[in-house]
Amino acid sequence: MTTTLFKWTSDNVKNKQILLSKLPDGKLTADCFSVREVPVEAPSEGQILIKTLLLSQDAANRAWMQGATYRGALNHGDVMASYGIGEVLESSHASWNPGDLVMADIGWQEYALVDVREATPAPEHDGPLSHGLSLLGVAGLTAYHGLINVAGIHAGETLLISAAAGSVGSIVGQIGRMKGARVIGVAGGDEKCRWVETELGFDACLNYKSSAQSLRDQLQSAAPAGVDVYFDNTGGDILQAALFSMNLRGRVACCGAVSMYDGKPKPGPFGVPGLLVTKRLKMEGFIVSDYAHLDSDARHELSLWARQGDLKIIEDILDGLDNAPAGLIGLLAGENRGKRMIRVA
Amino acid sequence: MTTTLFKWTSDNVKNKQILLSKLPDGKLTADCFSVREVPVEAPSEGQILIKTLLLSQDAANRAWMQGATYRGALNHGDVMASYGIGEVLESSHASWNPGDLVMADIGWQEYALVDVREATPAPEHDGPLSHGLSLLGVAGLTAYHGLINVAGIHAGETLLISAAAGSVGSIVGQIGRMKGARVIGVAGGDEKCRWVETELGFDACLNYKSSAQSLRDQLQSAAPAGVDVYFDNTGGDILQAALFSMNLRGRVACCGAVSMYDGKPKPGPFGVPGLLVTKRLKMEGFIVSDYAHLDSDARHELSLWARQGDLKIIEDILDGLDNAPAGLIGLLAGENRGKRMIRVA
Repeated sequence: MTTTLFKWTSDNVKNKQILLSKLPDGKLTADCFSVREVPVEAPSEGQILIKTLLLSQDAANRAWMQGATYRGALNHGDVMASYGIGEVLESSHASWNPGDLVMADIGWQEYALVDVREATPAPEHDGPLSHGLSLLGVAGLTAYHGLINVAGIHAGETLLISAAAGSVGSIVGQIGRMKGARVIGVAGGDEKCRWVETELGFDACLNYKSSAQSLRDQLQSAAPAGVDVYFDNTGGDILQAALFSMNLRGRVACCGAVSMYDGKPKPGPFGVPGLLVTKRLKMEGFIVSDYAHLDSDARHELSLWARQGDLKIIEDILDGLDNAPAGLIGLLAGENRGKRMIRVA
Repeated sequence: MTTTLFKWTSDNVKNKQILLSKLPDGKLTADCFSVREVPVEAPSEGQILIKTLLLSQDAANRAWMQGATYRGALNHGDVMASYGIGEVLESSHASWNPGDLVMADIGWQEYALVDVREATPAPEHDGPLSHGLSLLGVAGLTAYHGLINVAGIHAGETLLISAAAGSVGSIVGQIGRMKGARVIGVAGGDEKCRWVETELGFDACLNYKSSAQSLRDQLQSAAPAGVDVYFDNTGGDILQAALFSMNLRGRVACCGAVSMYDGKPKPGPFGVPGLLVTKRLKMEGFIVSDYAHLDSDARHELSLWARQGDLKIIEDILDGLDNAPAGLIGLLAGENRGKRMIRVA
């Protein structure tokens, strides 16, 4: 049995889609994308038809163009992939009803057919829908699990975070402060760094683009006693500087490598594995779904912190599907502050 | 009160020492070392005088010349450092008596004054003294702790080991087999690889120097289902190939980086941290003393395995202190099989 909100036919509604029409060779550019309109189709058995409300924009979207990761590679001609939140319009499955809010890999399109096995309910909460992608979505959960369950931060430790103004980094630092760590961010640009310090309350934020002082020297001044935990969103030169400043038995939570996504990846940092042996470091890669069994506890705590005013939720919402390409290109260049998303409807 | 076996004076006994007379620039060569004779001195308060019996030769000896690691850097003019086993000749401290067997950083010399805080009793056992440096010494304990306590090997997993014919690798593989893992070694040379398979019982051993097939291709054939645990003694190109072949949630126990010690270190492997994130890998550096609190359990089990004939102890003993430089240079070139040591007296 199919339940429906409206009767869809290819005549009355079109689905605008943005395709990855060619794979980038080097930096991602707008001409990698193209727009088309196709008829909206009714769901087959085991599918739901959803209307896209919000799309998440993540550095990982660019990594998917490089090859298979924790998901299959994107190919040219595919609808550009993206997680997001949608509303069920029509369901062919008893577990979903029209009007339900759903999270899924929707892609850059106004309507999507999604396999019910790949859809999860949007988190229930009393805040705005966008919190489902920021505080309670991939950003908040990645920050929480990475810092608490992967790195195991302790009070009194020094915590370093790259992409500190980004969706994940901005939350990691605030949680780190609550847990009693000394928190040092890394971001691109002096103005952004001051914002991380004043708005997010980091103890310090270092500008890796500074022409005045190398990041390694800045780190030496900001963390003279060394770094205990490095939350790595970037890889590359920042990871390199971090490894040199790590203390004995330091931990590196490898969350992403945005410096390596948008262009040709470079060789990894110098001194791996020698530094790991000498300092007995642990580097561990993770993705948020590894800790899905702990999501409800994490969401409970994240919500509480936000309600108490201890955790600021920074969102950077662009309106309109047409802005998705420029939004992602800008995110890869570091122009966002907090969680960037596209409001589609 | 000082207890003594003999009365030492500078007149009746000389101490032959081998100095690191210059730091190597590139590969270690014999002309980095020089020999001198000095008088044997009586121990000061808190010291013991020991007679050197056996010296351990380890790739780490070369790393100590590169800079500070888990110990201070070696400088030119120093007596070349090396762990070993000696016999106490004269003691200024109640905890040691003449005739006691002691393990310490003795250095390449016939006699040594050692701070009692830096000496530990040689392990008690009923086998030959050399087992104190192989089975029950740094080699056996590093293999045991790295595989059991760092990597946490499980039955049914695929275990890859570099420097498989070396002091640590040869033991790691044998323990891995006992724990029910499928064990694949990497070594330099076809003949050495066949020895690893037939003598040590590895399931396979791959020649990283092969001109016929890249290590990555060999790994693909030998471990089509991928590698779960990589015990890394080498770093470099072998680590690179291993990272590409690791399975989801694989673990890399970083024990050493011999490929990086003897010459100018190169940039680290390509794909760190991207591969770590995608595959959720954990890389962890360790040194044997991190697990000293578990040494007695480890020695108990290692002894048992050896007595039962389940663990072959491969030793490669050179006679005479004068052979120490050539022994170490040869070890760095991979000429040893099993635990290389120098019998001094």
